[in-house]
Amino acid sequence: MRVDGNRMREDFDALARIGAVEGGGVDRPSLGDAHLSARRWFLDRAAAAGLETRVDAAGNHSALLPAEGPTLLLGSHLDSVPNGGRFDGALGVVAALHVLLTLQGARLPVTLEAIDFTDEEGTLVGLLGSEALAGALTPEALLAPRGGRDALVAGLERAGLREGELSSARRAPETLAGYLELHVEQGPLLERAGVEIGVVTAIVGARSFALVFRGSAAHAGTTPMDARRDAGLAAASFALAAHEIVVRDFPGCVATIGDVRLAPGAYNVVPGTARVALEFRSGDHVGLERLEGAMLDAARAAAGRGRVELEIEPVGRWEPTAFDPSVCDTIEAVAADLGLRTMRLPSGAGHDAQALAGVTRAGMIFVPSIGGLSHAPGESTAWEDCVNGANVLLRTALVLARG
Amino acid sequence: MRVDGNRMREDFDALARIGAVEGGGVDRPSLGDAHLSARRWFLDRAAAAGLETRVDAAGNHSALLPAEGPTLLLGSHLDSVPNGGRFDGALGVVAALHVLLTLQGARLPVTLEAIDFTDEEGTLVGLLGSEALAGALTPEALLAPRGGRDALVAGLERAGLREGELSSARRAPETLAGYLELHVEQGPLLERAGVEIGVVTAIVGARSFALVFRGSAAHAGTTPMDARRDAGLAAASFALAAHEIVVRDFPGCVATIGDVRLAPGAYNVVPGTARVALEFRSGDHVGLERLEGAMLDAARAAAGRGRVELEIEPVGRWEPTAFDPSVCDTIEAVAADLGLRTMRLPSGAGHDAQALAGVTRAGMIFVPSIGGLSHAPGESTAWEDCVNGANVLLRTALVLARG
Repeated sequence: MRVDGNRMREDFDALARIGAVEGGGVDRPSLGDAHLSARRWFLDRAAAAGLETRVDAAGNHSALLPAEGPTLLLGSHLDSVPNGGRFDGALGVVAALHVLLTLQGARLPVTLEAIDFTDEEGTLVGLLGSEALAGALTPEALLAPRGGRDALVAGLERAGLREGELSSARRAPETLAGYLELHVEQGPLLERAGVEIGVVTAIVGARSFALVFRGSAAHAGTTPMDARRDAGLAAASFALAAHEIVVRDFPGCVATIGDVRLAPGAYNVVPGTARVALEFRSGDHVGLERLEGAMLDAARAAAGRGRVELEIEPVGRWEPTAFDPSVCDTIEAVAADLGLRTMRLPSGAGHDAQALAGVTRAGMIFVPSIGGLSHAPGESTAWEDCVNGANVLLRTALVLARG
Repeated sequence: MRVDGNRMREDFDALARIGAVEGGGVDRPSLGDAHLSARRWFLDRAAAAGLETRVDAAGNHSALLPAEGPTLLLGSHLDSVPNGGRFDGALGVVAALHVLLTLQGARLPVTLEAIDFTDEEGTLVGLLGSEALAGALTPEALLAPRGGRDALVAGLERAGLREGELSSARRAPETLAGYLELHVEQGPLLERAGVEIGVVTAIVGARSFALVFRGSAAHAGTTPMDARRDAGLAAASFALAAHEIVVRDFPGCVATIGDVRLAPGAYNVVPGTARVALEFRSGDHVGLERLEGAMLDAARAAAGRGRVELEIEPVGRWEPTAFDPSVCDTIEAVAADLGLRTMRLPSGAGHDAQALAGVTRAGMIFVPSIGGLSHAPGESTAWEDCVNGANVLLRTALVLARG
């Protein structure tokens, strides 16, 4: 039993036309017009094919093959980052829909539900729909959303959602039989390894810090090199040390200095202050803890070398999420049955699956991203790989449905 | 013959009250109300003491002791950077005034002129008055002034000056007998050496460049360290290399990275672009040329190491100005006569003297800045050092007046 790759492609292409931008991408920020159109397209397509449909209090859109048993969710999201790619999220939703279409008429011991989660990317809150469904949506996340309160309020209004009722989208864990998500890798590892299917073992944890190096602003002409307390130089010294440490001592982990702000910030003034945006990620708790220690030690050492002060402000903290080992084994086994090469890897990016993993057995299937490119119009995956991913999703769902 | 240090202090303090800010500084941006008040105070004080006064077409304010011969100019400026110090510029003008007051009644073979130049600091144009007097003010400087056209037009209007007539402030070189300027060092070298008088040999030349490192913006979670083309990391690598090269190979020179802009500039995105503001200074042409070569080679090497592209945009170019060797010798000799220790040094900052050096024999006298601090309210110089500087100015003027 296989999904119909050609029919799936027609649907994928139809969806990619909604909010299409030059270069092959889509611009469908959460609860904007293009996103709402894409969601409507999904419900209409499901209904036209004879599937039941449903929209919950968090705006999650679903197509269902109902049965007596608990619900096995298959899903992803239809929103995109601004000027993003057409595969990120959309592939998982279309594949879930086609798993249901393939299984129409089959008698299953679970309800199968293809779900399009609200606001995964975080232009408003991030994982809004999946966290609401998992009962993990906090009032804090709504009060200080990443995209700002005004954008959230306007988006909910546009989508006809009520802020006070979002959390009633929660499903009791005993009603769930599991969660599966097919997604593009958004990195180069599968392509590099020449592997068709990634078995995602975990979502990495991340921590971020604002590091403020404080030296002395000084006249760039009259202050000799040895009299300077150059905050920018200390920040540069830290950036190099952080890079070296991660590459040398933390294989598979990443650390990023995404932004630096120097003040006063003029050609002829030695920088007095450097504000550094540091983020690092690791697939497990112990690694993340060790990485934090190494990064902050390196920052302190750089401040010491540069004779500047250092302030450390924690900014963000996301714990790693491990996926269900038996689901990982199942994905691996069904892929092997289909003659596909697999590789286990953690996901460096966040996904709806991490919210679901807290309440039900969850797993993720990755397919290769060409050149590792993502969050850009040029994001692409060979169609054959997409179909392979959908078939692994179908087979894994069948195994999970049975027990 | 010596200046009256107490009377000079009264005048210095009276001037420091005009535009005074907390912490002992002054806020007298060029042609603003406080600056115009300070200039009026200077003319009134000179006239009250029986000196002739004059304001030229560039707004330069002068007090004169007229004689038959050419004019020996002694001066500096009364404008300040925003929230600046009370010594920078003002000391030189007050000392010049007191040299004239000390020599009132003496028969000299030159006209002595204490001059307060317009807009030295560059909140509008920079060296506006001194360059106009030297015939070096260009239309380009007025069309694209550092502080913007609107501020320049408004400032000239407030001061009653006509843009089209500024250049008629030019003096023919044969009418000049020389130029001397007393100024605070604005750096730590005299204080470190325990020396009362700095003999300024040159104004350093400076060049500035915008260096744009172009890599690839990428997802901070899904892009492995070895797959990144991190423009910020390349910029950091350049910053460290530039520092090391100047310290090791260019003693007495400085190089500064005063600003860095990363794009897109978010915690979770590897920087695709880093725009670096680089400036470096050297006291002589050959050194400046070598320094430029070393800096740009280091930038290219850093770009190569980081597998990113590099664009080099020249921004500013100021040639070094050497002062008249015989004037330097004279300053050194009269200081020694007064029992003062001297040290030769280049000035890392620009001064009106550099404009004058193009048309007449010119020299500068530095006195120590406490802690090297300048362009800040806490800028300070021991009053005894100020009086020493004024006496060296007086004696040097007398030697130059005679031949």
